[in-house]
Amino acid sequence: MKARVHITLKSGVLDPQGKAIGHALEALGFEGVNEVRQGKVIEIDLVEEDPAKALRQLEEMCRKLLANTVIENYVIDLEP
Amino acid sequence: MKARVHITLKSGVLDPQGKAIGHALEALGFEGVNEVRQGKVIEIDLVEEDPAKALRQLEEMCRKLLANTVIENYVIDLEP
Repeated sequence: MKARVHITLKSGVLDPQGKAIGHALEALGFEGVNEVRQGKVIEIDLVEEDPAKALRQLEEMCRKLLANTVIENYVIDLEP
Repeated sequence: MKARVHITLKSGVLDPQGKAIGHALEALGFEGVNEVRQGKVIEIDLVEEDPAKALRQLEEMCRKLLANTVIENYVIDLEP
């Protein structure tokens, strides 16, 4: 079973990478860019085929390794 | 209008970051992890409200700055 984990900075946490991308877009002549935030996406291919069990396993992975829950949010999308 | 751009390595391109995450998950005792790939997600808030025009602008941003199209794929999701 495949899953995608989106990890983004919580709102209010400074995002220098996103800011840099925003400035670079402006320098390239793109207008009308309000805000840019950068996050990570992690694609995981699991042996587990049961969605509920896979979700539990992924939640634990996020809490233990993938996301820093002090400053980051995570969203898990299971692919059918 | 808000958009999310997913940037992932093309299949066949080595992903040492993904490999490192896979090994770390194994070391933490997670079993049944076949493959891990890491990509980026960029959230952009545009002034443009017309979906077709926003999409054109985002495509150009991807080609010119956000993605390295030699080794990366990009997918643009517009948020309604």
